[in-house]
Amino acid sequence: MDYSKLDGLIPAVIQDFETSEVLMVGFMNDEALERTRESGYATFFSRTRNTLWMKGETSGNKLAVVDIFVDCDDDTVLVKVKRLGDGNVCHTGERTCFYRKFDRDRGEGAPGNV
Amino acid sequence: MDYSKLDGLIPAVIQDFETSEVLMVGFMNDEALERTRESGYATFFSRTRNTLWMKGETSGNKLAVVDIFVDCDDDTVLVKVKRLGDGNVCHTGERTCFYRKFDRDRGEGAPGNV
Repeated sequence: MDYSKLDGLIPAVIQDFETSEVLMVGFMNDEALERTRESGYATFFSRTRNTLWMKGETSGNKLAVVDIFVDCDDDTVLVKVKRLGDGNVCHTGERTCFYRKFDRDRGEGAPGNV
Repeated sequence: MDYSKLDGLIPAVIQDFETSEVLMVGFMNDEALERTRESGYATFFSRTRNTLWMKGETSGNKLAVVDIFVDCDDDTVLVKVKRLGDGNVCHTGERTCFYRKFDRDRGEGAPGNV
């Protein structure tokens, strides 16, 4: 992996392996990726707390790793997971962190051209 | 959007709106996101070339925006797109940039615990 572009970090896209929903994006350093592989649970590096954290370690809503894919230039991973616990990944209690449409919440109508 | 965490950039996850495949991850600054919304085609900020680029502008493989979602803390977007042109998003000619399993290519067997 190439960690050089973001000061030792790579984005990790978390996708539900059953529904294909994108659930969240976190950042991993080399240690977080190793921990993810060894433990079988998605583990990130917190940029604000400057420490590793296993998603759901306290809530029980862990993300069990099914597959990990690497992108073409080795600077991003896609982690397909099975949602454990109550299955709500976002700290707001929503199933996915991407629960808001960009424009809808700003009252500007749909952004699409398709 | 909160651009403060990555020096003016946010990750943008690009997902096929029909198949739900994650196709690529790029970075956007405020201008790239505005350009994406105005043009209706995914436009990124190139960290290596320090310039905006519309994906597929030369190849014709543009990514037409269907929906944009914002994550819970406003520092990542999920862009659902329709693939245009030959539909191959990766510069290698693959449909998605995430065409390699992490462990398979390293001969260490499957990573999953599910």
